[in-house]
Amino acid sequence: MKARVTIMLKDGVLDPQGEAIRHALGGLGFAGVSGVRQGKVIELDLTSTEAEAAKAEVARMCEGLLANTVIEKYAVEII
Amino acid sequence: MKARVTIMLKDGVLDPQGEAIRHALGGLGFAGVSGVRQGKVIELDLTSTEAEAAKAEVARMCEGLLANTVIEKYAVEII
Repeated sequence: MKARVTIMLKDGVLDPQGEAIRHALGGLGFAGVSGVRQGKVIELDLTSTEAEAAKAEVARMCEGLLANTVIEKYAVEII
Repeated sequence: MKARVTIMLKDGVLDPQGEAIRHALGGLGFAGVSGVRQGKVIELDLTSTEAEAAKAEVARMCEGLLANTVIEKYAVEII
């Protein structure tokens, strides 16, 4: 079973990497971009076969290692 | 309109960051993880209102700046 974790900075948190991308896109002539946020995606291959249990386990991984929950939010989906 | 770009290393490409995460998860006692791949996610706020045109524009951004298409694959979705 595969799980995908998407980790983004929380909404109020400054994202200099996203801002740099927005600036670079403007420089390349892509005018229609008003905001950019960059985050991480982590795909996990799990040996578990039970979706709900796997999702809870991955949420524990996020809390313990993958995300910094002070400034980041995460979403877990089973794919 | 918002677009989400997910950029992952292509399947054959070594992913040391993902491997480090797998190792760290094992060390924390999460045994059921057989593989990890890490990638980037970029959320774009677009002024465009036409979904198909926006998707094509974002694909051009990926080819020109966001992804290194030699080693990375990308997926664009309008959200």
